[in-house]
Amino acid sequence: MVKLDFDLDFKKGNGLIPAIAQDCNTGEVLMLAYMNQASFNETLSSGKATYYSRSRQALWEKGETSGHVQYVREIRVDCDHDTVLLQVEQVGGAACHKGYKSCFFSIVENNELKILDKKVFDPEKVYKSVKGI
Amino acid sequence: MVKLDFDLDFKKGNGLIPAIAQDCNTGEVLMLAYMNQASFNETLSSGKATYYSRSRQALWEKGETSGHVQYVREIRVDCDHDTVLLQVEQVGGAACHKGYKSCFFSIVENNELKILDKKVFDPEKVYKSVKGI
Repeated sequence: MVKLDFDLDFKKGNGLIPAIAQDCNTGEVLMLAYMNQASFNETLSSGKATYYSRSRQALWEKGETSGHVQYVREIRVDCDHDTVLLQVEQVGGAACHKGYKSCFFSIVENNELKILDKKVFDPEKVYKSVKGI
Repeated sequence: MVKLDFDLDFKKGNGLIPAIAQDCNTGEVLMLAYMNQASFNETLSSGKATYYSRSRQALWEKGETSGHVQYVREIRVDCDHDTVLLQVEQVGGAACHKGYKSCFFSIVENNELKILDKKVFDPEKVYKSVKGI
């Protein structure tokens, strides 16, 4: 069991804090998800990014269905202790369930949203087994 | 007035979405704050990062008291349209009100929190005029 010598501030976010995942090799921001205390502790003890899914209301080990696990190389905490920043090794080269390396594949240009990046995998294939259930 | 050709999803966060600010030159993640629709629009039209302060419940142009303005070079939106990523030029070289370049100046080591970075300014001096009011 993980015993922490510091507190994170989960109160402001109704038990959740945002967690940013950054590629430890390239510095690219891959995604943002949420953590509760249990998912933070699980991340620390397993070494794999484990978030809290707001839609499923359950712990969610990133990559548990896609195989695109995130190995956590470093965890930083911000000045208010209400956000964490994970430096991760992204297995499969892609974090986004839509097939892109980063979830931030769209850019605002002239008040429109344009897709800037290219897919690195086909979500239809990767999530096939899950959809087939 | 800004007219957007896309929607951001503010519902899940009670009218707010997280906004990550990343140094456009170094890739360092500087801070995370929140935006409502008005602050997002203001950021677009002014070119300066404008957040929504949850404690003050008001729009907050980053750097309005410290001078540490963030000029926005690029705005990215994530796959769910519920998080934005700003590439910013950080005036004064520091984003954190505690004097550090990044708000993420602490690292988790052996279940303890350790300060890794060094201050680049003295908050007592920068915020002196504000405190003196």
